[in-house]
Amino acid sequence: MSLKDRIHHESLKLFSTKGFLNTSISDIMQAADTSKGGFYNHFDSKEDLFFEVLAIAQGIWRDKVLYGLDEIDSPKGKIRKILENYRDRYLKDDFNFPGGCIFVTFSVELDDQRPDLMKEVAHGFVGLKRLLKKYLEEGKQVGELRSDVNTDRATEMIFSGMIGSSVLFSVDKSSDSLNKSINSLILYLDGLTPTESLVDINIEDHLLEI
Amino acid sequence: MSLKDRIHHESLKLFSTKGFLNTSISDIMQAADTSKGGFYNHFDSKEDLFFEVLAIAQGIWRDKVLYGLDEIDSPKGKIRKILENYRDRYLKDDFNFPGGCIFVTFSVELDDQRPDLMKEVAHGFVGLKRLLKKYLEEGKQVGELRSDVNTDRATEMIFSGMIGSSVLFSVDKSSDSLNKSINSLILYLDGLTPTESLVDINIEDHLLEI
Repeated sequence: MSLKDRIHHESLKLFSTKGFLNTSISDIMQAADTSKGGFYNHFDSKEDLFFEVLAIAQGIWRDKVLYGLDEIDSPKGKIRKILENYRDRYLKDDFNFPGGCIFVTFSVELDDQRPDLMKEVAHGFVGLKRLLKKYLEEGKQVGELRSDVNTDRATEMIFSGMIGSSVLFSVDKSSDSLNKSINSLILYLDGLTPTESLVDINIEDHLLEI
Repeated sequence: MSLKDRIHHESLKLFSTKGFLNTSISDIMQAADTSKGGFYNHFDSKEDLFFEVLAIAQGIWRDKVLYGLDEIDSPKGKIRKILENYRDRYLKDDFNFPGGCIFVTFSVELDDQRPDLMKEVAHGFVGLKRLLKKYLEEGKQVGELRSDVNTDRATEMIFSGMIGSSVLFSVDKSSDSLNKSINSLILYLDGLTPTESLVDINIEDHLLEI
């Protein structure tokens, strides 16, 4: 790993755990085992590093959460896969994000203190919401979801449920609770399907509880 | 306001905005317009202050979120009232919590860095979950909710939806989005009622969208 990569990776971990404002350049220098010169050789400022780390975190998010989506045709299946990936591949990734979802950490910390940086973080939330709504709309069009489903509202439910699950997982670090809260969202999604497929839902339901 | 009250109130505001670890005793002294002597006259340490402020925040939470619950007989009505209070009386309270829900701020910040303090904060989450589940169970018993409603799962949905809504509100500070996300939870709750009352739901539904 090059020094630059090492600084990126250690900063990801520190920002996810302590937040951006609470992490000093000395913390980063120490974690990446480098000097002031080594740091400033690669970054103009802490803000400069912030934007690079944010872009890297967004890349990791996409790689993990959107993994395997291309292979799924069903829009409802894609949302289900997003929820499963979010649970298994993203939130449980303590290699990159030992302190839990870095976007939630940034949001809680930066909203009042650095609205300029917060704006950049917020793009990601908007993007995820847009994606969920798109798949919900497509699901309605192909008849996987009931025609009376309000996609705005369903987007809100799934989206805020994801964020809430992430906060709670960082509180209790319990895989069991995380499974329960994400499974509730999956079952909510299943509840939006036309009633003739209720038998399938009950089977899936049962499997999730095992 | 006595000096002690002033320190409590300014600390509430600072902790909600900057977090506990990121707020220094000097920040508090400055905001409360006092000296080191004035501070230590009332508090043994920053931790000591933390526990007092946490207890005050929990009191404010109860006063605001549980407001008027006694006057409601219906268990489902109580949950609805909790959601409305959370939205209108609690999250929009920028007198006490200008930085958004102080418990979410504490959670994101303290989980990895001060698990000892985190434990105290987590009690509140457990209490809210227990309360929601209790009312959902009672709602089932009196027939306000369908007999096939899984109350554990519904508790997860409402609870993580509340936490998620709070994080998102601190990001965009938009009352409109907050109304939308909490209304989605209210409509989710309405969706748990026996189907014979669907006509009422649609009317409420319509009113919420105006």
